[in-house]
Amino acid sequence: MKYAKIPEITIHRLSVYARHLALLDMNNVKLISSVNLAEACGVNSAQIRKDLAYFGEFGVRGIGYYVKDLLFELRKILGLNKEWRLGLIGVGNLGAALLRHALFNKQGYIFVKAFDQDPEKIGTTIGTLVIDPVEKMEDEIEKVGIDIGVIATQDQTAQECADRLVRAGVQGVLNFAPVQLKAPADVHIENVDFTLRLDALCYKLTTD
Amino acid sequence: MKYAKIPEITIHRLSVYARHLALLDMNNVKLISSVNLAEACGVNSAQIRKDLAYFGEFGVRGIGYYVKDLLFELRKILGLNKEWRLGLIGVGNLGAALLRHALFNKQGYIFVKAFDQDPEKIGTTIGTLVIDPVEKMEDEIEKVGIDIGVIATQDQTAQECADRLVRAGVQGVLNFAPVQLKAPADVHIENVDFTLRLDALCYKLTTD
Repeated sequence: MKYAKIPEITIHRLSVYARHLALLDMNNVKLISSVNLAEACGVNSAQIRKDLAYFGEFGVRGIGYYVKDLLFELRKILGLNKEWRLGLIGVGNLGAALLRHALFNKQGYIFVKAFDQDPEKIGTTIGTLVIDPVEKMEDEIEKVGIDIGVIATQDQTAQECADRLVRAGVQGVLNFAPVQLKAPADVHIENVDFTLRLDALCYKLTTD
Repeated sequence: MKYAKIPEITIHRLSVYARHLALLDMNNVKLISSVNLAEACGVNSAQIRKDLAYFGEFGVRGIGYYVKDLLFELRKILGLNKEWRLGLIGVGNLGAALLRHALFNKQGYIFVKAFDQDPEKIGTTIGTLVIDPVEKMEDEIEKVGIDIGVIATQDQTAQECADRLVRAGVQGVLNFAPVQLKAPADVHIENVDFTLRLDALCYKLTTD
């Protein structure tokens, strides 16, 4: 589905709304006022209306939002109304923690492959996943198909892993290594860099 | 040190510059051209000049930047010219991976406390840290002093942990739980939410 160019921060907020709606839905809440939804998501209700207006009319005046309906629409907009197949590269402390993270499955993200270069790890299992040798990455990815490669390697090897993912036809990369990855323009990279967030925190604490 | 209000994205880029300079410094590189620094950091050189101009004059025309000098200045600006003491709350898979993450120490971030509520974990050690019961959080933090609380608990308990950190006088929180935390205005919260980054990636892959 194509929409007009939507600001990244709007997409970010739609995820936050969807997550809160999922929580409400799990607790069998049917309706939520825009004021309450806004408060729970740390914005004001005008912001929610503005964000949703890119995609159509969703609220009911004087009532608010039907939880299930809005959640359904948001998941459709965000592309979360399907399963996304992930492949992990680098099963160190962080990588193993990601494989075991309950959140992924709950939100429709399924790890279908995990790769490492350590002979002691290759062939062992985490959950139901057997760890494959990183040399077989392209072959294995071709066999099972993955949508998103998750890089949790050392910084020195992250770029090489990204290159191999690209060669295997993967167009989405979630990068946990603290490096700036290079990739062709049609490959999307999102960085999760917690030391940059820590730096931002320290700057705020320092200038306070 | 107080500066004029600096855009958050500028601070983010300064961290990226500092990180690359640290790498160069480790490899004994003395000088870098603004073009090369820009390329390594995924920006253009005009951007670097603009970002640095908030804080003074740093480059040498026709030469570029002295690596050690610029790194020193950037670390001073960002408040990274000191050690930051971290306390971890929640020693699950992710929390344990964070404790073991080499990057933190390398960048001046030291975990001095770790808390969990699981009786099986309390009293055990990870690295040199003994895991304390979460009930003692306020007391222990008062005793040893921490600058930043790192929340890696389940979403249901994250807000309670944030409240306790605030009561213990902590003014910086790095939050890994996928919830919107509430805190007084003088407490700084940074969120590391990888499922939101995954959602952003799926949106891009869907609308491509």
